[in-house]
Amino acid sequence: MATPPYIDKVDVEARKKAIKAFREKFKELLAQLQRGDNPTLLLPKRTLSNTIYDEKRKLLLLGPEKLKRSFFHLHEAKKFMQTMLMARIIYEALVNNEYPTIRDLYYRGKHTIIFRDDRGRMVEENTWDEQKESDAVIRDIEVFTGMLREEMLILSKEKGKVVGNMRIRSGNDVIDLSKMGHGAWAIEPTPDLIEFLDVDAEFVLVVEKDAVFQQLHRIGFWRKYKAILVTSAGQPDRATRRFVRRLNEELKLPVYILTDADPYGWYIYSVFKIGSITLSYESERLATPNAKFLGVSMTDIYGDAERGKKPYLSEDERKRFIIKAKDADIKRAEELKSYKWFQTREWRKEIDIFLQKKTKLEIEALTGKGLKFLADVYLPTKLETGDFLD
Amino acid sequence: MATPPYIDKVDVEARKKAIKAFREKFKELLAQLQRGDNPTLLLPKRTLSNTIYDEKRKLLLLGPEKLKRSFFHLHEAKKFMQTMLMARIIYEALVNNEYPTIRDLYYRGKHTIIFRDDRGRMVEENTWDEQKESDAVIRDIEVFTGMLREEMLILSKEKGKVVGNMRIRSGNDVIDLSKMGHGAWAIEPTPDLIEFLDVDAEFVLVVEKDAVFQQLHRIGFWRKYKAILVTSAGQPDRATRRFVRRLNEELKLPVYILTDADPYGWYIYSVFKIGSITLSYESERLATPNAKFLGVSMTDIYGDAERGKKPYLSEDERKRFIIKAKDADIKRAEELKSYKWFQTREWRKEIDIFLQKKTKLEIEALTGKGLKFLADVYLPTKLETGDFLD
Repeated sequence: MATPPYIDKVDVEARKKAIKAFREKFKELLAQLQRGDNPTLLLPKRTLSNTIYDEKRKLLLLGPEKLKRSFFHLHEAKKFMQTMLMARIIYEALVNNEYPTIRDLYYRGKHTIIFRDDRGRMVEENTWDEQKESDAVIRDIEVFTGMLREEMLILSKEKGKVVGNMRIRSGNDVIDLSKMGHGAWAIEPTPDLIEFLDVDAEFVLVVEKDAVFQQLHRIGFWRKYKAILVTSAGQPDRATRRFVRRLNEELKLPVYILTDADPYGWYIYSVFKIGSITLSYESERLATPNAKFLGVSMTDIYGDAERGKKPYLSEDERKRFIIKAKDADIKRAEELKSYKWFQTREWRKEIDIFLQKKTKLEIEALTGKGLKFLADVYLPTKLETGDFLD
Repeated sequence: MATPPYIDKVDVEARKKAIKAFREKFKELLAQLQRGDNPTLLLPKRTLSNTIYDEKRKLLLLGPEKLKRSFFHLHEAKKFMQTMLMARIIYEALVNNEYPTIRDLYYRGKHTIIFRDDRGRMVEENTWDEQKESDAVIRDIEVFTGMLREEMLILSKEKGKVVGNMRIRSGNDVIDLSKMGHGAWAIEPTPDLIEFLDVDAEFVLVVEKDAVFQQLHRIGFWRKYKAILVTSAGQPDRATRRFVRRLNEELKLPVYILTDADPYGWYIYSVFKIGSITLSYESERLATPNAKFLGVSMTDIYGDAERGKKPYLSEDERKRFIIKAKDADIKRAEELKSYKWFQTREWRKEIDIFLQKKTKLEIEALTGKGLKFLADVYLPTKLETGDFLD
């Protein structure tokens, strides 16, 4: 099939690679069929019990357990067929130069199968009812083929943005991330296809909040302090995580995360650094184990007598800016405390201060002291004195 | 005060203008004080009863009613002082080359005043407790000064993105919106400061969903059909609305809105076109009265016998793709039906079909039929045949 003129070369190559991987992986099934065997897929098990925290690499990884899915098996047949249906739809999209999303993959596969059951009754059964089901099948195909869905040219909504002294190639274009005016470059949904051309920066600052990103961008923080400035606009999506990981791994730039001082902020850091527990198979590609938590930390608020660290807020500012923690915050903090990567001395202290004081603080409380306080006092001091958590 | 090197010229000019407007407006108060009068602000009333739908201009506007706010008045003193406090903070931020957000304006002004009441008791009173309160004060300052908060260099989080055959100047940079690779330009928080340099496009397509924007972008829709492609990523923020309005007003580009076929989608269209009812004072600057609702419409789903229009979905596809409306959808539809701009013959039909069938449909159901169906059949047909609602 001729490639339409508006498809770019990078995508054509990505398609070829994905198509090849699909054919390789699924030809085992063909061999089974030719031998007259019961067609069976063997997939890595995506369960919590098969999720392992690799302390050395600081990554959540899938363990060695495998899952069998056979066609001729009462309990496995539906899942087997769902997997084959989804694989076919994704494969067809690849071949037809399509760019599906997980939502329309759900729609594409959704239909009703009418069949006669073992007692001779006509039965109607849906391929899937909820997107949850089709998403789980996509994940199975990811672990089965060893490819992320982005490599299959499956797109999704994206919130991440970036500016900084750096040039990249995306699609057919060369983009200068230092020439975005007051706006930013919205990170593409397939960040593995980005080519880093050159970079003149010393670190990556990832800001949880888009509004604070806008402020730091507008005041020229990244220019003055040689930073690549990224926002995840809340909980990071996969593309932002993969982009940040590549900045760290390939360009050797240290990565610092700036969030609100609360368990939700810590969790955002945790997702960047270690990955999400329920989707551990992504971690190997999306997580940035070297990422540091720059702040806002509890010792930024209250100081740390042990280290002789003074707080960044006065007594009066604390009174004005601090927010009372909710029960859900406390509960989440207790939960995070049990994660292995939060069991260092520093993190225990951080979480304990929170549990004792039962207070949280937004980054905006610091810009409430003046944007220049955040940009020219707080952030540079934290970076220079190495005052961050690992 | 010397301008730091990283502040751009456009911002310096914007600051000067805002500072001047503030001084002009507030010097009336100074005159009152010098005369020994009770300091009093006269503000346009931001109430529903003072909100008027201008049928000719198709805009929600503030009516002529004014509100008095005096310092020496038991019920007005607090509001008067809140307004003066916020005006001072914004003015100081302007003078100090700051870029506050509405969230940190809340923090900046938040403190406790201790005073002795008329019975001699010590009383503590907060300037404000919730951001709702400080936001309302910012709105009062907007209507009082006749400036949008963006013109006061107040920033906010932004979700809007754009690509297309167009060059703009933002800050000190010239940005080619056709050279964003697989990413996009994230619209800046102060879109009035954008300069349109040149454009080679025939219309603007605004897509509610970011994921569908990614798909249409990636398949080259805007190149092939000469569109400026915008996404609001859900409910549009102010910057996206202002940006779209400027594309329509200054570049004379027709604007088409593409949302899900449900009352939530209609509301997004309504906000783009008319403005938000509770914030009618913004409409004059942010709304695009010429915007059309391209789809997905109920007649796209079910056809329209009266016009001889065939549906875009087969019986079987309807069965697979349609979602049952929830009670909240029905309620919202009934509400929208009462809006004057939804009382055309076409919109009544649209809403009536919805209320009768009680079903909705996502845009992704169309990409479920293939992205090329959306990009090369549905959208071009709708545009060519003028099949949209006004």
